[in-house]
Amino acid sequence: MPRISSKGIAMPSSPIRKLVPYAENAKKNSIKVYHLNIGQPDIKTPDVALEAIKNNAVEVLAYSRSEGSDEYRTKLAAYYNSNNIAVTKDDIIVSTGGSEALLFAMGTIADYGDEIIIPEPFYANYNGFSTASGVKVVPVNSSIENGFALPDIADFEKLITPKTKAILICNPGNPTGYLYSKQEIEKLAEIVKKHDLFLIADEVYREFVYDDGIEHHSVLNNFGLDDYAIIIDSVSKRYSMCGARVGCMVSKNKEVIATAMKFAQARLSPPTYAQIASEAALDTPQSYFDNVIAEYKERRDTLISELSKIDGVLVSKPKGAFYCVVQLPIEDADDFAQWMLEKFNDQEETIMVAPASGFYSTPGQGKNQIRIAYVLKKEDLIRSVEILKIALEKYRSQ
Amino acid sequence: MPRISSKGIAMPSSPIRKLVPYAENAKKNSIKVYHLNIGQPDIKTPDVALEAIKNNAVEVLAYSRSEGSDEYRTKLAAYYNSNNIAVTKDDIIVSTGGSEALLFAMGTIADYGDEIIIPEPFYANYNGFSTASGVKVVPVNSSIENGFALPDIADFEKLITPKTKAILICNPGNPTGYLYSKQEIEKLAEIVKKHDLFLIADEVYREFVYDDGIEHHSVLNNFGLDDYAIIIDSVSKRYSMCGARVGCMVSKNKEVIATAMKFAQARLSPPTYAQIASEAALDTPQSYFDNVIAEYKERRDTLISELSKIDGVLVSKPKGAFYCVVQLPIEDADDFAQWMLEKFNDQEETIMVAPASGFYSTPGQGKNQIRIAYVLKKEDLIRSVEILKIALEKYRSQ
Repeated sequence: MPRISSKGIAMPSSPIRKLVPYAENAKKNSIKVYHLNIGQPDIKTPDVALEAIKNNAVEVLAYSRSEGSDEYRTKLAAYYNSNNIAVTKDDIIVSTGGSEALLFAMGTIADYGDEIIIPEPFYANYNGFSTASGVKVVPVNSSIENGFALPDIADFEKLITPKTKAILICNPGNPTGYLYSKQEIEKLAEIVKKHDLFLIADEVYREFVYDDGIEHHSVLNNFGLDDYAIIIDSVSKRYSMCGARVGCMVSKNKEVIATAMKFAQARLSPPTYAQIASEAALDTPQSYFDNVIAEYKERRDTLISELSKIDGVLVSKPKGAFYCVVQLPIEDADDFAQWMLEKFNDQEETIMVAPASGFYSTPGQGKNQIRIAYVLKKEDLIRSVEILKIALEKYRSQ
Repeated sequence: MPRISSKGIAMPSSPIRKLVPYAENAKKNSIKVYHLNIGQPDIKTPDVALEAIKNNAVEVLAYSRSEGSDEYRTKLAAYYNSNNIAVTKDDIIVSTGGSEALLFAMGTIADYGDEIIIPEPFYANYNGFSTASGVKVVPVNSSIENGFALPDIADFEKLITPKTKAILICNPGNPTGYLYSKQEIEKLAEIVKKHDLFLIADEVYREFVYDDGIEHHSVLNNFGLDDYAIIIDSVSKRYSMCGARVGCMVSKNKEVIATAMKFAQARLSPPTYAQIASEAALDTPQSYFDNVIAEYKERRDTLISELSKIDGVLVSKPKGAFYCVVQLPIEDADDFAQWMLEKFNDQEETIMVAPASGFYSTPGQGKNQIRIAYVLKKEDLIRSVEILKIALEKYRSQ
């Protein structure tokens, strides 16, 4: 029998995948499982996007342009301009989700064995895209004690080698909910310019910022990073359109765009129906976002308030996105998460969480942490934290 | 300024891309351009698929399962069973076009620097996916003189090294239109078993077979290749749904599927709307295909008949797909194709063709050949060949 590749063997499994059979089994035993483990919002997709699909006039479902349709990119550029990101449609390549934009970016800037520095904990699939691209992730540790703020410049500089091609950030962060300040982006700008690195910023949660007077700073705001910055973006979270699979890569560096275009041409085009929905979604009224942000803010405040009532639990209040990392008074969150599904219930209810170890690249880090996605409605979040509290007591008294 | 990668520099451009500005310029000068250069069918997408989208009931456009929805894969398995391909839904991973299925397959079986043998001329984007995956394409030459039949086993065996991981075929072939016989698939089965290689078969044109008594043979028909075969498939051509971006990878090798699933999980899911359309498309009535095949057969027969009237033109009658490679009595088809757009017209009309050199991996091969996609209606094909004839006369008399 022919053998699969070392790359295939090295590809990481989803950090929650091994828990899925336990969750399915719990459900078979009539246990209700609250899903705090995935970032699939329960928010309705904007009507304007849903209606555009229902009323579409496609007769031949043809390829679009490899870089995405002119109409969509033109409207996208206007959206960015309104966010003080001065780009034109020619600086944008529409991709199949933010996922594909990341693959394009990695292929464009890194060769086999090259290194990308990423503050950890980070979005687990960065590991998968790196492995698929032959790129080595070099983690720089950020800590729950200071709310996952940007590590010191010195910490980055210690890790830079001739193979380092980029720093990759997620802002606001999944899984941390951390929002980088203007000063932190300035620090990053300084490092990448000094060492001639790219700065890749996954900004798919740009709109999900909850506190008055605190705003999101894009790497393509006025930081002088035109040659250095690559934005990864997506409609998935912004419009609750995860299943569209439409994202984009944005850069003012012409060589980056020209090179990424060759990757885009090889796969022909992004999905046509989803582009129709995504273009229409740009007309979503501001009231939709106001309601969504208010809803998430309330969920966040509820979650943090409830969690803070549990002894021994440490949580950093997220400033954006809809995740938080929670440190628990236990040793092995993988074991605890499985135990809650396999051996525990409270009134026939339990919770599924994502063990945080999968969001770290350094072995042993985050062993006592979990990621909670606050994508459930308020009552469910309150009940979920209650279940967590009871489960912790029972687990620790074993 | 940070530098782009060697991989990015090595990524091939589309073989027709450099001609696009000349075609656009011709159109600006009011020249009508017949497009024989792309495989975008003009055939209407089946109503059942278009209607499913118009009547969809999605309210939250959520991720699907990474491997594609259970419902779709179940119906897909039934489709394969009706084609004597004995698979279940668990042998199928739904992908974003055949393109992504190829990326999954390459990542699953090949490491950096590994080799895949491909009969040339071949679908140009195999080069792009190989470069993106760090895989080396090793071409084995097939010849227009014997209709692009499978090269001898000895020709393959000369090229096999310890780094060879697979043989990749496209059947029916793009750009050749060649359909491998049962005996040829048996030969391939023998080689891959003897040398422990995978056999990747791009079968996206499975239905496009035109001659009575000649049928398509899939690598997952009864060739004993359960451990070896990987099918790349797509709805793009079958249902004229190129813009859906839905394909799949099919294998009975459990390790292959489990490994490819890790690549699939990293990118979360294939597009949801397009899966709805693709699932519905499986209910397309047979009459649709009968009409489409009759239409393409007539186009092929017309094209070949017209081409054969031109002195010095060599063409191998395609048995399937909707392309053919045409050898012209000139030296440089790249120059000729550009000249037809830039410096020639007949009654304000010209044609755009794909120079075949981009479909070869061996430098210098196919320099006097073009690929014609017969995706235009009969009258337009007749006129296009007339234009080609006049252009050849004028070009050669310069």
